[in-house]
Formats: sequence, structure tokens, C-alpha cells
Amino acid sequence: MAKRYVRVQTAKGQIYYGLLELNRSVTVLDAPPWLQGQPTDSELKPDTYQILAPCAPSKVVAVGKNYAAHASEMDSEVPTEPLLFLKPSTAIIPTDAPIWYPPQSQRVDYEGELALVIGERCTDCTPAQAQAKIWGYTIANDVTARDLQKRDGQWTRAKGFDTFCPLGPWIVRELSPGAQLQTFLNDDPQPVQSDQIDRMVFSPDRLVSYISQVMTLLPGDVVLTGTPAGIGPMQVGDRVRIEIEGIGYLENSVIARPLPEKPYP
Amino acid sequence: MAKRYVRVQTAKGQIYYGLLELNRSVTVLDAPPWLQGQPTDSELKPDTYQILAPCAPSKVVAVGKNYAAHASEMDSEVPTEPLLFLKPSTAIIPTDAPIWYPPQSQRVDYEGELALVIGERCTDCTPAQAQAKIWGYTIANDVTARDLQKRDGQWTRAKGFDTFCPLGPWIVRELSPGAQLQTFLNDDPQPVQSDQIDRMVFSPDRLVSYISQVMTLLPGDVVLTGTPAGIGPMQVGDRVRIEIEGIGYLENSVIARPLPEKPYP
Repeated sequence: MAKRYVRVQTAKGQIYYGLLELNRSVTVLDAPPWLQGQPTDSELKPDTYQILAPCAPSKVVAVGKNYAAHASEMDSEVPTEPLLFLKPSTAIIPTDAPIWYPPQSQRVDYEGELALVIGERCTDCTPAQAQAKIWGYTIANDVTARDLQKRDGQWTRAKGFDTFCPLGPWIVRELSPGAQLQTFLNDDPQPVQSDQIDRMVFSPDRLVSYISQVMTLLPGDVVLTGTPAGIGPMQVGDRVRIEIEGIGYLENSVIARPLPEKPYP
Repeated sequence: MAKRYVRVQTAKGQIYYGLLELNRSVTVLDAPPWLQGQPTDSELKPDTYQILAPCAPSKVVAVGKNYAAHASEMDSEVPTEPLLFLKPSTAIIPTDAPIWYPPQSQRVDYEGELALVIGERCTDCTPAQAQAKIWGYTIANDVTARDLQKRDGQWTRAKGFDTFCPLGPWIVRELSPGAQLQTFLNDDPQPVQSDQIDRMVFSPDRLVSYISQVMTLLPGDVVLTGTPAGIGPMQVGDRVRIEIEGIGYLENSVIARPLPEKPYP
């Protein structure tokens, strides 16, 4: 089985990068693995830690309409260049944490996506150089308030709410070419999204190259590679599970956003 | 004179928050001032440090069309709600650092703006609560590749290039209500932008409240409050200076983006 790189928090609140062993204990690394973190003698037993999102990016860069069938379901063409947007790092949550349904929206959608984790500073890279700077792969849910996305024009609010970027559960270093991405809602055995990730329009190396000609990517930064067809709404109480073959699955439930008693003017 | 809070780097590469004294020496603080940093006995003499951007935000949240005359020059209405977008933190440069003109654009504009620095974690705040979490004020240039902004629809690329967020030179804690914002190009004594910052549509407290109902703002995060009328292009070789009464000025020159010999595919 491929090595699984995790980020965990202990009961005392200490945060570590580590390797998840088959018995679910974690071998602690002395630094993030993309910064040459090495295994230490310290081991965390199962049930003594919580899984966090597997990295803590300075930014999350995402692309729109990167699968032809999804562009089509959005009544849109595949762009001639990658269409970039940003999600704030405050939106990131780990697997099993709840997605908060915000009161401003009446339509909140899942979007299952392959996420790239950058290992090295990356500015003005060719696709070949970019490929070498992709340290590993994980799973993301690019949660989107579809009604606000349409209303605002800019996607920042619709995709930027707290909890709107589930990420994880861990990072693997290699991906098999034909790996399947599937999204499941609740107990329905039929996936709502199902596609091969190598059917994306702009491949990971081309995406990272393109982004690096605009903004410098830093170690631990994350690139979301777009969602395949089949996006749709989630309701409070739903569970959404995104699986990518060779990685694992990312699962989150949806709850109403917890609000202070009188937050609004 | 109001206290001026800076962030500086010494010749050895050490980074400090500090208070800029009238003789241009810097009294070193033991933490960012919004995290209760206190003055130490350490003092940096003039010319022994470089001024950095005055904070290192986890995110920069910006708003579009927040002055009526600017919305009008963009052939647009003032939005009924603040229109949010994000600039990546990799775009931030300090005063005096060069703005890189990217080869992808033929039209790069200045946009002088008041910037808010958040002092405390801020989620679902009322405007009154939000006001208390604005720790101070500085100046930003929301540099924008106008042609790419129009072409992409999403503003992320157009506003996200490395060096496209000059920020500084320092932070002050208070702002006089009628303070004037003015932008100057090169040696022209006539400002290209000139407006009172209290003529913005959504005031700082309302902006921060609005943003906090979407995404949590963290200590040191920055909110750009929009640009007044008078935006226009810069050329390689230009210098742009943005002044806000009671703060100071932020000045940057424009150079061609330095590129590796063969960055592109």
C-alpha cells in the first residue's frame, strides 16, 4: 500500500506531520515531509490523535470548468486557458468535520476534486518543472453556494465560507493514470459524480505551470483541479463522501452554521 | 505624531515588528502589536534594516466598486452588497519594492486603497464588534491587469500576480474621518486619484462585519476597502505613489517581470 502522509493533533493540542501506519498508529515526522521531514522515534497510538487536513497551505488555488462534461452541465464552454480562483485557507476542514450550511444561501453544492500538494517554491515553471514540484495528491470538496456564485459574479463569497474546503484525509505521492473520482451522497450506492481524473482538460503539470506564471506557489500550497460532471445540492443532515482510487475517501456531514445569538446588524 | 508600526528585516535576515521613531530608528517589539507585542530594549539604527510590508496576512480580502464614482467609471452600479475577492499573500510587496509588469498583460493599472489590519479573530461580527477588531490602517495598491480582468471574468489572475499588492509603509491606529486618498504618477503634481476615504459606500466596520459572516478573519489579516475614481494604466519605468492623510505614502516603481530564459512551454 502507498505511504499515507497525515497531519494530526494530539489531545494536548500539539500538531505533527506523520506517516499513518496500517495499524492506524502514526509515526511522527520532524517537519513537513516536503521540507525533508524525517521519521522520529515518536509514535502516536490509534485514538490518541485527531486527523487534521494533511497540510496547512498559505493559499488554495482552484480552477473552474476543467472537465468538459461539467463545463457543459454549467451551460458553459471549456475555457481556452485555466480559469483561476482562490479559496481562503480559513475554509479548510479535515475529513469527518462538519460543513456549515450558511444562512445566506439556499443552495450549497458538493464538488469532488483531486487536490495537488506543492512541495517546492514554484515561479514561472514549465510543465516538466511543475510536475517535479507536485509533492503529492489528496482529495478536496470545493463546496459552493451555487445561488451566491451566480448572484455575485465573483466566486469568492460562494466558495469562501468557513468549512467550504474539506481536504484530506491524507497525501499519497503517486497517482495511477486512470484513477476514478467518485462522489456519494448519504447511503446511495450510486455515485453522483464519477469520472477518471485523467479526463481533466488541463493536467496537473499544466495547471501548476500556468499558475506559477501568475503567482508563486509555496511548499504546502494546494491546487484544486476542478470537478467532473454531476454536481448537485446538499442539505443539512446529508453526508458527502468523495473517493479517489489509490488515495482513499474524504467524508463530511452538513450542519447548519452555528451562529451567535445576534450576529447581524 | 501618531505611532507608526512597522515590520522590518535586518541585514542578517531577522524579521521584527517595531515602532518607527522620529529619528528613523526602530524600537523592536517582542510580538506583533495586535498580539500584545511590547517594546524591548532592542533598537535598530537607521539604515540597518529594510522596511517590509507591515504585516504578514494569512489572507487579503478585497472589495470591488466601493466608491460610487469608480463604479460609474467602470460602467457599473454600486453593488447592493460588498463584492468580495481575494488577493494571494504572495502578491504582497513593501513600499519601494518594484511592481513586476507581467508579459501576459498589455494594461496594468494602479488602484490606491485604504487597507484595514485585523487585530483579533473575527467570525459573525456585528459592525460594532467588527470596528473593535480593526487594529489599524495602512495603504495598499490593488494592482490590476485590466485586460485580463475583463477577459477572465474571475479577477483572481488579473489581481493575483506576484508584486500586485504593495502594502505599507506602516500601520497607524487611528484615522481622521475626512482623510484624503491621493494617487500620483511619476512627477506629475496633479493626482490621478483623489477622494475622501469616508466617501466609500460600505464603511470599514460594515465591510469587516460582512466578510466575517462568510469567512473568519485572523489577526494580521488585511482588508482592502476599494479604490476611488481615477484608475489608469502604469508603464514599465513609472513610479506610483499613494498617499493617505494621517498615514503616509506607499511608493513603488514598475519594472518588467524578471523571467527565466525559457519558462514557457
